Amino acid sequence: MADQSTPLPLTRESVQAAHKLIEPYIHKTPVLTNTTLNQLASTPRTEAELAGTEWAGHAPAKPVLRFWFKCENFQKIGAFKARGAFHAIERLKQEPGWADGGGRERGVVTHSSGNHAQALSLAAHTSRIPAHIIMPTSSSPAKIAATRTYGAQIHFSGPTAPEREAVTATIQSQTGAVLIPPYDHPHIILGQGTAALELLSQVPRETHLNAIITPCGGGGLLSGTALACSGGENTDTFVFGAEPSLDAADDCRRGLATGSRVKTVPATRTIADGLRTPVGKIPWSIIHDRALVRAVYAVGEADIKRAMRLVWERMKIVVEPSAVVGLAAALYNEEFRALVEREGGEAGWDLGVVFSGGNVSLEMMGALFAEA
Amino acid sequence: MADQSTPLPLTRESVQAAHKLIEPYIHKTPVLTNTTLNQLASTPRTEAELAGTEWAGHAPAKPVLRFWFKCENFQKIGAFKARGAFHAIERLKQEPGWADGGGRERGVVTHSSGNHAQALSLAAHTSRIPAHIIMPTSSSPAKIAATRTYGAQIHFSGPTAPEREAVTATIQSQTGAVLIPPYDHPHIILGQGTAALELLSQVPRETHLNAIITPCGGGGLLSGTALACSGGENTDTFVFGAEPSLDAADDCRRGLATGSRVKTVPATRTIADGLRTPVGKIPWSIIHDRALVRAVYAVGEADIKRAMRLVWERMKIVVEPSAVVGLAAALYNEEFRALVEREGGEAGWDLGVVFSGGNVSLEMMGALFAEA
Repeated sequence: MADQSTPLPLTRESVQAAHKLIEPYIHKTPVLTNTTLNQLASTPRTEAELAGTEWAGHAPAKPVLRFWFKCENFQKIGAFKARGAFHAIERLKQEPGWADGGGRERGVVTHSSGNHAQALSLAAHTSRIPAHIIMPTSSSPAKIAATRTYGAQIHFSGPTAPEREAVTATIQSQTGAVLIPPYDHPHIILGQGTAALELLSQVPRETHLNAIITPCGGGGLLSGTALACSGGENTDTFVFGAEPSLDAADDCRRGLATGSRVKTVPATRTIADGLRTPVGKIPWSIIHDRALVRAVYAVGEADIKRAMRLVWERMKIVVEPSAVVGLAAALYNEEFRALVEREGGEAGWDLGVVFSGGNVSLEMMGALFAEA
Repeated sequence: MADQSTPLPLTRESVQAAHKLIEPYIHKTPVLTNTTLNQLASTPRTEAELAGTEWAGHAPAKPVLRFWFKCENFQKIGAFKARGAFHAIERLKQEPGWADGGGRERGVVTHSSGNHAQALSLAAHTSRIPAHIIMPTSSSPAKIAATRTYGAQIHFSGPTAPEREAVTATIQSQTGAVLIPPYDHPHIILGQGTAALELLSQVPRETHLNAIITPCGGGGLLSGTALACSGGENTDTFVFGAEPSLDAADDCRRGLATGSRVKTVPATRTIADGLRTPVGKIPWSIIHDRALVRAVYAVGEADIKRAMRLVWERMKIVVEPSAVVGLAAALYNEEFRALVEREGGEAGWDLGVVFSGGNVSLEMMGALFAEA
């Protein structure tokens, strides 16, 4: 079976090369700012707000923050995942012997019920390569339909990881398709890093980003962002991650605390449904082993909802719950806010915030925000 | 009592002058395009879709449409109303004798529970002029709070027009404040017209807009748009309006059919809550008497919801129900679509669509789209 035997080195230069390769296929998404959100973030939280949190009784932090929002909700298929998928497909097309050996006809395969499924379908379809997507039977009809729209062939599996992997293995052996995993792959990680690369080039010349914060699920976006900031004029741009805390979904934060990767997470009910997976092996090697991510912060469900409401009401753009965990950390996590106060001082920090996607259904928004 | 005794002539040149005056205070909102929506609009509706509508049994129209969306949902206070309010305030400041005669201290007054209230509050506050807003006691706490945020003084009235006007008259006589009505005023109309003026200048050089369609409530935006297209290189850019049809809210369309303005509309339940008012006298003189608007189309509630869903899912931006009636007409009104087919032919039309605002609460969205 064909495999991607010659991945690129995990460096900033490889992210730059990835960007050059996928530029014709992706949107250069806008970077937005918002005065009201800057003011909110730069206002100390009140004692009343901190009551009932783990920071009750502590003096509120006084950070100064200026946000630069990288809007991957406007990306193709509505999420940054298009970047990694297009990059993986483009590298596959360059793989020696792949096309000549009938690889194009055999196609690609992945298991995902979310944005990666749509991203790989679109990227494969664009190069007229067949795509096989394994989805749990429990996937929403809307997601199945959206993935099918891009021309992929859907195969169903049971909901557990072993069931999913068994179906994937069967499809692989039947078709000879190449597996493109959602995050634990060098070319996926390098592709996702291109969002941060663009962001760094889109802020005004006189602005130097002190840090970038991204959501962290499998870790593809976070580790790719870390690589994008690992050289050149951005070695001093810190990279932070953010995760939901509900039901111990903050596996990356907990892993960093003990120095050992948390390999499985229990089923979590967090509304940030893109962030329910544990960090992958290769992302972990970048985040932890190479220490390219400074810290990861956890945020609660109420804070995710509050951040979504602010983005909705103040920026008038549609973001999915997973997309706003970085903003939620900057607004509500006192540990992060104290760090910004300490290191940014009166001048404060220019903080890049990656809004990872906008694929939230109106029905889900209705359920989240309908008046009781 | 001071009054605005020297309004500008209602011409394209006055819209240009208004734009120059308010430019420092407003956002130059972006113009967006969307391939999927173009494709949808350029696909004939099916017989099944037309069944049950007034066009059942007719051959579906085959228009070719390319949309240029002017995103006033990203405008200050979240709607185009900021343009008219800033213009009225700036003209008031230039009024001979107004400032010297103590006009600045006496302030301005209006009655509105919606976007005009917030717009006038912001515009007055920016020039440190007191603003008195009369709102019905039934206004949502969110709208009251938002208007108060901009520093206006709120006065409450009963829900009917006579009750509202009585309170307004009392406040006027007590304070000497100048009344700035929401749409029936030359300076408001000229200000609203600046959105179309920008749109015309924001499309690529090689694109000439065949038409612009805007929502029509009191008619300020529609008549201002008509003035913006009433001269120069845009005399051949048609202007259309769109209204909700529920509960006879399509007063402008009905008035044009009989040649006589419909002066009152019954209480309507349309979700397009910004479009519940009848067309004002001065807007009507532009729309009808001067024939600067070619036609007005009505759209049903289900089509407004469908258009909202498309904008949400495909463009990832937040728009209020009133904002999408123009898009709904282009997608679903066969009368308009047949006109575009007839006149645009195979080359089709480049159609400017003004998204008038984005002030819809999450609770309202929840109620509209929550799963049954």
